[in-house]
Amino acid sequence: MNKTIEKVNAAIVIIGNEILSGRTQDINVFNISSWLNELGVKLEEVRIIPDLENSIIKTINELRKKFKYIFTTGGIGPTHDDITSKSIAKAFNMKYGYHPEAYAILEKYYTKDKFSEGRKKMAMMPINASLILNPSSGAPGFIIENVYCLPGVPSILKSMLGELNNKIKGGKKILSRTISAQTVESEIAKSLEKVQNKFKKVEIGSYPFFRLGKIGVSLVIRSTDKKKIDDCYKEIVNFLKKKKVSMIGKQ
Amino acid sequence: MNKTIEKVNAAIVIIGNEILSGRTQDINVFNISSWLNELGVKLEEVRIIPDLENSIIKTINELRKKFKYIFTTGGIGPTHDDITSKSIAKAFNMKYGYHPEAYAILEKYYTKDKFSEGRKKMAMMPINASLILNPSSGAPGFIIENVYCLPGVPSILKSMLGELNNKIKGGKKILSRTISAQTVESEIAKSLEKVQNKFKKVEIGSYPFFRLGKIGVSLVIRSTDKKKIDDCYKEIVNFLKKKKVSMIGKQ
Repeated sequence: MNKTIEKVNAAIVIIGNEILSGRTQDINVFNISSWLNELGVKLEEVRIIPDLENSIIKTINELRKKFKYIFTTGGIGPTHDDITSKSIAKAFNMKYGYHPEAYAILEKYYTKDKFSEGRKKMAMMPINASLILNPSSGAPGFIIENVYCLPGVPSILKSMLGELNNKIKGGKKILSRTISAQTVESEIAKSLEKVQNKFKKVEIGSYPFFRLGKIGVSLVIRSTDKKKIDDCYKEIVNFLKKKKVSMIGKQ
Repeated sequence: MNKTIEKVNAAIVIIGNEILSGRTQDINVFNISSWLNELGVKLEEVRIIPDLENSIIKTINELRKKFKYIFTTGGIGPTHDDITSKSIAKAFNMKYGYHPEAYAILEKYYTKDKFSEGRKKMAMMPINASLILNPSSGAPGFIIENVYCLPGVPSILKSMLGELNNKIKGGKKILSRTISAQTVESEIAKSLEKVQNKFKKVEIGSYPFFRLGKIGVSLVIRSTDKKKIDDCYKEIVNFLKKKKVSMIGKQ
């Protein structure tokens, strides 16, 4: 078994004052993390930082050494507050300017007479970057080493993730099973801890919920090992039955 | 004018594997940031980290020196994966155990015969902490120095923010006005940059949107100074009129 591909981790950096100010509810973390999960990449940290050059440079230079993949979102558009591309170039000490391939893509997309100065800015990035093609609105993202720079608009970002599927090498896929039980956490905490202590390599998460007028707890069992998940799952179902807790959903 | 209360900043630490795995869409950042905004506190960073003692200790000890207020969410419940309280005690090198006041609250809430071991765990925290009362489900959060520990369940968290209103001393409230224009960013980027260069103390954010079949850009002007916002607003409206861009919303 190749240990190096066992644990492939990632971090996301959301760059955007609009998220920090409470103006906009972020959805990109959820979209990227679901996609990474499918690829067998474990998201281990997220940072949301302002559109400030120093913050971007410092955060990128810290995280790119700690994680296999870094994904940034936001700040690669045409306006004055879009400073991600320039900041990333500085973080890597690379030349920032018109990227020939990105320029050609945008010139074709907009046609020559509508290729304004604002639009041209979207071709400015570290000039040695690889591009991430954008099937929905032309302007590409880019890759430098292990840093993948994506736009902030969720629909555009989502359309670009597909382009990356064969560029990201995931590890073993993390599998999960969930049991939703009609109980409260404190009723099952002790039994659950015993199961967790028995299955040390399996991650058991306990998440209370209130929905459709019902109070309950979702127990999520996660591991790369299907057999271990199933064994752990059985033990949890068994103790819930013993406690006469009704299960309102299993998967 | 008291300079020290001008800039009051904060960071949020979301503690939870369920957010990183893509199982759960976070809403707490949005709720806390909106609330902080009302109080005149500027949220400057968010971190989402796993339920791991080392990550929690390292993150808290780094951020509590950098920001005036730190808010954590998640990991203060009764189950084995709830390790926030213990980790925070370690970060501050404080004694972790039954908090007498929290114990008394929970004993009363559940009544003595239903005060199980799992429930008792929710009274375990740094024993010198101040409590954050919980009007919806009994179990309190806690405060150590500038770190405020809240639960992860959004409805409970929200109900507890009100308890903190008179404990958080905000600075000048950050005001904003928004213009939504039927255009694309690249058409207005240059004019907008000129306005931004003129109003250096005002933050102008540009956010493209696609909704109700319309493409547009929302321009958000933010500052603590109402007069500056209004002046900046007028200049933007003027150049949009000159460019014959129709405005579909102003506030």
